[in-house]
Amino acid sequence: MAAAPLLIQSRENTLVKDLRRLSQDSTAYRKQGRVWLEGDHLCSAALVRSMKPQIAVFAESFWPQAPSDLKQAAERNVLMADVLWRDISGLESPAQMGFVMELPNTAGLDPHAPTVVLDRLQDAGNVGSILRTASAFGFTQIAAVKGTAALWSAKVLRAGMGAHFALRLVEGLGNEDIEGLQVPLLATSSHQGDFLHRAALPWPCAWLMGHEGQGVSEALQRHASAHIRIAQPGGEESLNVAAAAAICLHASGAARS
Amino acid sequence: MAAAPLLIQSRENTLVKDLRRLSQDSTAYRKQGRVWLEGDHLCSAALVRSMKPQIAVFAESFWPQAPSDLKQAAERNVLMADVLWRDISGLESPAQMGFVMELPNTAGLDPHAPTVVLDRLQDAGNVGSILRTASAFGFTQIAAVKGTAALWSAKVLRAGMGAHFALRLVEGLGNEDIEGLQVPLLATSSHQGDFLHRAALPWPCAWLMGHEGQGVSEALQRHASAHIRIAQPGGEESLNVAAAAAICLHASGAARS
Repeated sequence: MAAAPLLIQSRENTLVKDLRRLSQDSTAYRKQGRVWLEGDHLCSAALVRSMKPQIAVFAESFWPQAPSDLKQAAERNVLMADVLWRDISGLESPAQMGFVMELPNTAGLDPHAPTVVLDRLQDAGNVGSILRTASAFGFTQIAAVKGTAALWSAKVLRAGMGAHFALRLVEGLGNEDIEGLQVPLLATSSHQGDFLHRAALPWPCAWLMGHEGQGVSEALQRHASAHIRIAQPGGEESLNVAAAAAICLHASGAARS
Repeated sequence: MAAAPLLIQSRENTLVKDLRRLSQDSTAYRKQGRVWLEGDHLCSAALVRSMKPQIAVFAESFWPQAPSDLKQAAERNVLMADVLWRDISGLESPAQMGFVMELPNTAGLDPHAPTVVLDRLQDAGNVGSILRTASAFGFTQIAAVKGTAALWSAKVLRAGMGAHFALRLVEGLGNEDIEGLQVPLLATSSHQGDFLHRAALPWPCAWLMGHEGQGVSEALQRHASAHIRIAQPGGEESLNVAAAAAICLHASGAARS
């Protein structure tokens, strides 16, 4: 099925250069139209969701023991000298294989899907964690307002642990796109609305999650159809946004079960 | 009140070297017996909780506009040439001030306190987020099993956003210490026990949160007095541990309100 693998040994090889960019520059995937999935966990998660990688890249020393499903997944297999692997890895302990995959085509927002809106979230770890949580609780779409961390960057992919492949991901949106959603828009608030654990939550819905420092923009806040409070008996000023998202999305999931 | 500040200009200055270690080596605070709080947000949070810093360090250019409460907080103020600041900062945009504070004395576990047990959690961001969540929902103690990320490291402090000062933090514990807790020990499970949103949760209690890859050790799992399931209608294999903690600790908080 797969052709006999080519061994790459030069730092100047075009693929090595492309992978270095995909790994280090969080928005390079937009220019290249393809993403870099590093590590067998992420690659296996992609296969489970029927993704079709273009190229599978293996560290030379790993090839002999690489699982056959990973060897047979891509149109093309490539071996890379181990010494080059550090160049293209964002990990402290570099993974030993990865896939190059075409950037999934996103045809735009589905106005009726259960959605998590990311309003200019900055931290890749937070964004990845929220994708994972969204997928776990039955949300099917992520709507990222312009200014949010790049969804297909290596860091967000790593924190998402495969959730990317189960979700419809739309980014670069304006407020008007969010306002076009046809499901009730829910915002968290520190001072108004029902407490989450007593609220009747609509389904499907869209939860608004905002910038780590500034929260959700006033324009989007105004457009929310309900404000929901998270009771904080300890009195801390705020939760981490990924923690708040976990609590809200779980409540939406629990309300249906 | 505060003495006229001394200006430090040499990389070889002892304080600069000590701060560099505190900032870059996650366990240096144990040797030095003191912690480094970087940035006005963290320092203000410490003051709100009546912490007494030993030394307040200011970037030379920031001193003229530094808020007076930060200038009057420490036994000693020190100015540091701006160029040295990069050496001692773990931030991409270095903060312009920080406190050196004595490592709070932890007299050991309170067996009756509402507690979050961290069983060998690796990721500093996860640990900090859980501290913040614990504090928000009325937990007063963190019990970290040996192997957990160092609680007072710069990264955990940053992610904790001041929660450190509201909690009793005990680390380096063995399983026997956790088993000595006199409150019910709750563990999350993927396959047994009541669903969280329907469970009657005891208060006070101790929640067990485990290693990112391996989960809670079998020895501690066996010691749990209840196993609780988080319903995941989306069918993902697992949640990020800080997300799972947020959901569980919120449920404990909500059950009391």
